[in-house]
Amino acid sequence: MIFYYAPQTVAVASHIALEEACAEYEHRKLDFSIAEQRSYEYLQINPKGRVPSLDTGEGIISETPAILVYIAQTFPKAQLAPLNDPFEFAKMQEFNVYLASTVHVNHAHKLRGIRWTDDRSAIDAMKVKVPQTMHDSFDLIENEMFTGPWVLGGDYSVCDCYLFCISLWLEGDGVDIGDFPKIAEHNTRMRDRASVQTVLPIHRLS
Amino acid sequence: MIFYYAPQTVAVASHIALEEACAEYEHRKLDFSIAEQRSYEYLQINPKGRVPSLDTGEGIISETPAILVYIAQTFPKAQLAPLNDPFEFAKMQEFNVYLASTVHVNHAHKLRGIRWTDDRSAIDAMKVKVPQTMHDSFDLIENEMFTGPWVLGGDYSVCDCYLFCISLWLEGDGVDIGDFPKIAEHNTRMRDRASVQTVLPIHRLS
Repeated sequence: MIFYYAPQTVAVASHIALEEACAEYEHRKLDFSIAEQRSYEYLQINPKGRVPSLDTGEGIISETPAILVYIAQTFPKAQLAPLNDPFEFAKMQEFNVYLASTVHVNHAHKLRGIRWTDDRSAIDAMKVKVPQTMHDSFDLIENEMFTGPWVLGGDYSVCDCYLFCISLWLEGDGVDIGDFPKIAEHNTRMRDRASVQTVLPIHRLS
Repeated sequence: MIFYYAPQTVAVASHIALEEACAEYEHRKLDFSIAEQRSYEYLQINPKGRVPSLDTGEGIISETPAILVYIAQTFPKAQLAPLNDPFEFAKMQEFNVYLASTVHVNHAHKLRGIRWTDDRSAIDAMKVKVPQTMHDSFDLIENEMFTGPWVLGGDYSVCDCYLFCISLWLEGDGVDIGDFPKIAEHNTRMRDRASVQTVLPIHRLS
């Protein structure tokens, strides 16, 4: 497998999951500073021009919730998802899709406002609400979604990889993780895992 | 099962899938004009205050890609997803998550800009780019994602329910579905299905 990523992006979530699964893979870094994700070569791999992408050998997958479940399904021994219970599986998916379609989107209004408007003052205006939208989303996760000790309860899952990844964005988004005691403790506990200790330096994160 | 929906929303996708599965369910309509989705009662069901939600009897699921896969998994005879092939399953998920996290989000900048800014002129500015972002997304679906005759190829899946639902938004978003011949033909063919013929009138759609 080949894992295409850029440092400090949402690729961190899938990267941790690959490590948790003890997958054998090659990782290929894209340089966003020269817009390598928009290069002709990469657009053949992922026409959306985004990261991460996972070349599985059978074909290429993108979108974090899809990649995370693929890893869980192809490495079942790692027990990264409730694969045999449709309701629990749906709750896992619900969590991942909330991160993808609401929380990541909230965050993207800080640096990627150009996706939704070409008006310079509107792009600046969008940045203003990011601390509030991210705080509101994490409030909802802390109080309504996070079961504990892991996201889904007693069993670690790909949701933990994904939540950890996005929780790393809070400080830059003007939100104090200390406002969410369960998520803050989760963040600390995740750092004890070998997977996280392998992945963070690759992304120049601490 | 109880299906909570509001007419003419993304709930149409899950509603069609429930009909395709021949599921037995009760449907309960929320009135967005009186913000019933933010009522105390509904927030106990879905603290996000959004639709759809599916009360499965075991618990409640939200987020369209999660609901669609749950329906496919619990009604396997309906053959609504490639359940036994992790790679094909991932491609299905990739498509659904793209609709949820990019296409639906593009569309939401027309009427739900308040999610991301409180600046009135920025909210107006966001509306301007919606025809372009929706056109760009459907270009990508038409040319890079849609296999044909159904989204994933020869087999109908929940992706078809979801694509059909979102394609109904194009006209209101200032995009001519005729610019996408494969998706336009898909839209016409979907209307022949009993599921769609049952669901459209419930949503006052034609």
